[in-house]
Amino acid sequence: MIDGVVHRPLRIIPDSRGPILHMLRNDSGGFAGFGEAYFTCIEPGAVKAWRKHTRMTMQLAVPRGLVEVVLFDARPGSASNGTLETYTLGAEQPDSYALLIIPPGIWNGFRGLSGTTSIIANCASLPHDPDEAERLDPDNPAIPHTWPPA
Amino acid sequence: MIDGVVHRPLRIIPDSRGPILHMLRNDSGGFAGFGEAYFTCIEPGAVKAWRKHTRMTMQLAVPRGLVEVVLFDARPGSASNGTLETYTLGAEQPDSYALLIIPPGIWNGFRGLSGTTSIIANCASLPHDPDEAERLDPDNPAIPHTWPPA
Repeated sequence: MIDGVVHRPLRIIPDSRGPILHMLRNDSGGFAGFGEAYFTCIEPGAVKAWRKHTRMTMQLAVPRGLVEVVLFDARPGSASNGTLETYTLGAEQPDSYALLIIPPGIWNGFRGLSGTTSIIANCASLPHDPDEAERLDPDNPAIPHTWPPA
Repeated sequence: MIDGVVHRPLRIIPDSRGPILHMLRNDSGGFAGFGEAYFTCIEPGAVKAWRKHTRMTMQLAVPRGLVEVVLFDARPGSASNGTLETYTLGAEQPDSYALLIIPPGIWNGFRGLSGTTSIIANCASLPHDPDEAERLDPDNPAIPHTWPPA
C-alpha cells in the first residue's frame, strides 16, 4: 500500500427517482481541505497520464462510469517509494464506488474502462495552480506501467 | 432575482480524451465553505421536491444530463419573499453548464429534463444533518409551481 493513500468504499443510497451517492465530508478521515471541485471526463479506452502534484491532495470519486487509476510512488524517502498500485473506481460497479485520497508526490494516471464517458470528481485540497503539477508522457519508462492501446 | 442566489456560467475545457468541467473554488464569489460533497441523480422526468435547508448553502453543478431547478423564496423579511425562479442546469447543453449557489431558507426542487440520468453535484457548506432540512410534497399548494407528470 502506498503510504498516505486512502481508499474507502462509499455508499450509494437507492431511490427510484435517482440514487444519492456519497463522496467526501470535512470530517472524513484523511480530509485534506477544500480548494477546488472539478470533473475530469474519460472517454472509453482513453488514457490521461502521467501527472504528479507537488502540493495538492486529490480527493476522488467516480459517480459515472468506471476508471482504472494507476499510482506510482516516486517520493524520495517514502516508505513505499517505487510501489505501483492500481484501483478500479466507479459507480457503474457499485462495489467499486469509493473515495480515493492521493497525497502530493504520487504519479497518477487514468484509463476509461466503461463503454460510456466516465466522470472523475476531484475535491482538490488546493485551487488549480499550473505551477504545482508535473507531467510525463504515458509511455515514459520512469514509471513501470504499460497502458493498453486505446 | 432571489436575494443571495448566485448563477454563474462555468467553463468546459474540451479534450478528445474527455473534457474537464469546472465547478467551485474556495475563492469563487459566493463560496460558503465546504462541509460535504455528494451527488443526487435524477432519472428522466423524475421530480425531487420540495426541500429547504435551514442552515446549509447548496453549491450545485450538473456535470451530466440536464435538470430543471425551481426555487421559491419563503424567507420572512427577504426582499424577494414570494419570488419563484426556474433554472436549467446541465453539461448536456454546454450553455447551461453553470454554478448555482442557493442560500438557506429557499425551497428547492429538481426535475430530470434529459433522456438519460442526470447527476447533480452539491458541494454543501455543511455536512448532512437531517435536522436542518424541511420537506413538502411536490404538489403542496404553499409553493406556486406545478410539476408536470413524470
